[in-house]
Amino acid sequence: MIQIDAEDITQAVIDRLDECRDARFKQIMTALVTHAHAFVREIQPTEAEWIGAIEFLTATGKICDDKRQEFILLSDTLGISMLVVALNQLKGARAAGQGRLEATPASGSPTEATVQGPFYWENAPEMPLGADIGEGMPGEPAWYTGRVTDTAGQPIANCCMDVWSGDGDGIYDMQMGDDAGMRLRARFYTDADGQYRFWSIKPSFYPVPDDGPVGDMLRRMGRHPNRPGHIHMKVYKPGFQTLTTHLFVADSVYLDSDAVFGVRDSLIVPYTEHAPGRAPDGRELDRTWHSAHYDFRLAPAAA
Amino acid sequence: MIQIDAEDITQAVIDRLDECRDARFKQIMTALVTHAHAFVREIQPTEAEWIGAIEFLTATGKICDDKRQEFILLSDTLGISMLVVALNQLKGARAAGQGRLEATPASGSPTEATVQGPFYWENAPEMPLGADIGEGMPGEPAWYTGRVTDTAGQPIANCCMDVWSGDGDGIYDMQMGDDAGMRLRARFYTDADGQYRFWSIKPSFYPVPDDGPVGDMLRRMGRHPNRPGHIHMKVYKPGFQTLTTHLFVADSVYLDSDAVFGVRDSLIVPYTEHAPGRAPDGRELDRTWHSAHYDFRLAPAAA
Repeated sequence: MIQIDAEDITQAVIDRLDECRDARFKQIMTALVTHAHAFVREIQPTEAEWIGAIEFLTATGKICDDKRQEFILLSDTLGISMLVVALNQLKGARAAGQGRLEATPASGSPTEATVQGPFYWENAPEMPLGADIGEGMPGEPAWYTGRVTDTAGQPIANCCMDVWSGDGDGIYDMQMGDDAGMRLRARFYTDADGQYRFWSIKPSFYPVPDDGPVGDMLRRMGRHPNRPGHIHMKVYKPGFQTLTTHLFVADSVYLDSDAVFGVRDSLIVPYTEHAPGRAPDGRELDRTWHSAHYDFRLAPAAA
Repeated sequence: MIQIDAEDITQAVIDRLDECRDARFKQIMTALVTHAHAFVREIQPTEAEWIGAIEFLTATGKICDDKRQEFILLSDTLGISMLVVALNQLKGARAAGQGRLEATPASGSPTEATVQGPFYWENAPEMPLGADIGEGMPGEPAWYTGRVTDTAGQPIANCCMDVWSGDGDGIYDMQMGDDAGMRLRARFYTDADGQYRFWSIKPSFYPVPDDGPVGDMLRRMGRHPNRPGHIHMKVYKPGFQTLTTHLFVADSVYLDSDAVFGVRDSLIVPYTEHAPGRAPDGRELDRTWHSAHYDFRLAPAAA
């Protein structure tokens, strides 16, 4: 005898929101209950499977600390983070009166966003244009240049480009031990012509942290944990929509199967290989180096 | 420019399960991705809301320890636990060839199940029929009697009834501090006629633990955290489906708004109040006591 069946209990939980005074929270919780119950009705978990889910979520919380965020990793590897990013960029474009973004990065459309990932660290050191943030780190040097403009192609001067990446072995500073501090990250500001330039390394593919619950999940799903080589940047200036994105290394492995679904065609950049010698900024290199060029376009802030 | 829109990214994640060799896990993860993405598409979270969800889940994991399970509490308060219980009892009834359970607890249908909750503790002490598990605890004494039968009404002898409840103030032993040990819980075994009898207390309503993330969620939802007074039991014997259920106190507050959606009409039991004096087992009581009677019916184990 079950008075409240699968359908009724969902409505019973939603009805319990009658006294909720936060309209947005009510909307979110109503949708959460609706979709979570639909999931349960579809898979009909045994009690053991349900306890397994409880234990998975608990372990995912337990492994989090100030340098590891396993729930972001879970969101990333299930494509949820990228979905949130994509929906917000579409929303931003609409708010700026640009309608739906085009299917090709024509002039006029802003640079595509992608996931922020778990390795962003606020207040990276401010460095002068041309500085090397990869000095002494594993990996081949790479010279990054380009320009930041608005969607009409007008340069954006004094625009912050907050840059971070792993080293040439795919290791981020946050994974280098407690004493490593900030490495391979800095904030640059574009010059009067919107130009930026700096040295770092050519990033390598790497696995997302896979020694925790999410790694176990990926293995059980039959998936690898790897991301193609990329460098992150958050590009922002008042009056424009903040752009959080990557540049992906065009000859990297895993471009077609990024573990976090972050790759966009428009963000894949050729890294040109150069023999040892003089770089464009006059620096003499005694080993192979690379150059990558990319122009960013920022959307106007929503009205 | 967004090549992968909300629809495409969902399929892209599902396609990544191609190498999954565990058919059930593949089914679960496919459904999880489908419903989680549908939820995100519906509510279109801002990045700040998404981070809020990540922080909520992290805090929910962090507060869990060996005596507190906040994710079970989350599942309970969103009606998910009760949905899982209800679906499994229906499945059990079908497996036992009983078809859909009836809408009234007619003779022939097994006793309804409800949530186990976070306070079950394995290996409670075995006690003789008639023992008092509420001795010295806050709360008015209550004398519990009844019978365990199969769905045809035949007595089930030597059937384990694993019983637990909070005290008369709604506090469980697990909440009484590290030294409290097991209180108000025991395992009894029915006699040759399937009868059981024991003393405990008349349970009080109580709030689920609401000093953590789930409590914050309930307040924001405009909900109270209370459960009506109830006593838990897990009733089991080989050859029968294990029944995890409660008896609810008929005159308790919150029967119509149990914070975990566990109440079933068929589990509401009158507690008869008695003046001080002699109880049916010959015990002399110098204060008000209560009696509650309930017969349990167990479904046969699935073939």
